[in-house]
Amino acid sequence: MLQYDYQIRVRYADVDQMGYVYYGHYPRYYEIGRAELLRSIGFPYKRLEEEGVMCPVAAIHIRYLRAPCYDELITIRTTIKKLPSTHVTFKMEVFLESGKLANAGEVKLAFVDAKTMKTTYAPKNLLEKIHPYFEKAN
Amino acid sequence: MLQYDYQIRVRYADVDQMGYVYYGHYPRYYEIGRAELLRSIGFPYKRLEEEGVMCPVAAIHIRYLRAPCYDELITIRTTIKKLPSTHVTFKMEVFLESGKLANAGEVKLAFVDAKTMKTTYAPKNLLEKIHPYFEKAN
Amino acid sequence: MLQYDYQIRVRYADVDQMGYVYYGHYPRYYEIGRAELLRSIGFPYKRLEEEGVMCPVAAIHIRYLRAPCYDELITIRTTIKKLPSTHVTFKMEVFLESGKLANAGEVKLAFVDAKTMKTTYAPKNLLEKIHPYFEKAN
Amino acid sequence: MLQYDYQIRVRYADVDQMGYVYYGHYPRYYEIGRAELLRSIGFPYKRLEEEGVMCPVAAIHIRYLRAPCYDELITIRTTIKKLPSTHVTFKMEVFLESGKLANAGEVKLAFVDAKTMKTTYAPKNLLEKIHPYFEKAN
Repeated sequence: MLQYDYQIRVRYADVDQMGYVYYGHYPRYYEIGRAELLRSIGFPYKRLEEEGVMCPVAAIHIRYLRAPCYDELITIRTTIKKLPSTHVTFKMEVFLESGKLANAGEVKLAFVDAKTMKTTYAPKNLLEKIHPYFEKAN
Repeated sequence: MLQYDYQIRVRYADVDQMGYVYYGHYPRYYEIGRAELLRSIGFPYKRLEEEGVMCPVAAIHIRYLRAPCYDELITIRTTIKKLPSTHVTFKMEVFLESGKLANAGEVKLAFVDAKTMKTTYAPKNLLEKIHPYFEKAN
Repeated sequence: MLQYDYQIRVRYADVDQMGYVYYGHYPRYYEIGRAELLRSIGFPYKRLEEEGVMCPVAAIHIRYLRAPCYDELITIRTTIKKLPSTHVTFKMEVFLESGKLANAGEVKLAFVDAKTMKTTYAPKNLLEKIHPYFEKAN
Repeated sequence: MLQYDYQIRVRYADVDQMGYVYYGHYPRYYEIGRAELLRSIGFPYKRLEEEGVMCPVAAIHIRYLRAPCYDELITIRTTIKKLPSTHVTFKMEVFLESGKLANAGEVKLAFVDAKTMKTTYAPKNLLEKIHPYFEKAN
């Protein structure tokens, strides 16, 4: 299992007139979570695109429980539970400053060859970075 | 059943460097779809808030199949399949200009009393507007 | 002079916790205004990029007077006062549903050759579309 | 003079199909810059609203020179050059990872009494926090 926590602050731009983060803002937060997880293992997402692999999102699911307010320092927890193959699924959790769970979800991305635009496997050098975390998990 | 189609144009702000609408933009499109469905039956969402009812989103699910490009005129199809009770679920479909399905999803909203912040039932005058569509459906 | 009015509705996503459109949302509205002006003369912005010309924004200026609320139907008035050369300046005005001026500004775009990434002149076929409006103006 | 540098990373959501940050994204970056300047002197913006003062933006100006790409770590430099009175002006500069200036601008905010909705003076306790930086500047 591979897990990474990253903190971001809620900005004025993110909050709607109910006084809470707009529900449509979480996909961006989730993007930040998975980007920082990949950076933490030495394989920034940018490198995927440089190597000719695109990762369009295939599906997203979010369950909203509580919503953070302006200026809260929230924690985005990103988890990969299963070794990627043609797809990778990120389990997502966002925590309020109080530690309570704000929302939870999943984002499933496909690996796509940028030339052929067809689904492909996760690049070998990405898998090499991820593997060690799954050996430990057993 | 209550269904409504609404067209919007994809803007430069909505498209990412893959050349397609950013995956996090659809919750905004979905919001537009359900707002226009409610307007079409003479009960704009704004009135809900004016009557002391808030509708925070409880869950969203999106399956992405194809992505529209800049300047495409997409169609947002919003469907209510079941009479609302304490929650209402909007079935969402977005179609490319070519007519192909771009993505499909669901958004579930709760009815919340703005004073007590507790879950409540859909307001009677909203239900009165929705009822006729479900009588016809039988 | 070339002028075009286009109406759009303020969405929940656009409004902040003061209950008004977030100040950072107007560049998107302005983008919509100039895109629709160009479409109205038969030269959608997309065609510029198809012909190898990019139009990065060189400068923007906005003066905020009043702010629209959720669900207001606002009018974006876009005006070209001077024939484009290496740059084009769009004068922008946004009006509330009441007709009052919400904000006014200017956006200056450069014409850039997508291959050389150097400033170039407005394409001839765009100028041919714009010319008639300036002859009439005298 | 009061100046503060804050670094943020460009996200996929922020970049358009030219491959650069969308021009309309800078107001959000600028918001982050001034929020972090205020936090750095011990007066987070949130406290202004808690004390009944709202700060709507009165004007913004941005000159765009170069644009950052996806995943760049940019620096937002925020400067207050003049003691606030009924308004406060933030001078803004954004620097690329290379150190080059990406864009420069100004944001002018009004102090507004949230009850009367009329322009007011900067709160005394905010001025007390800012004063020391201006004494030193002479």
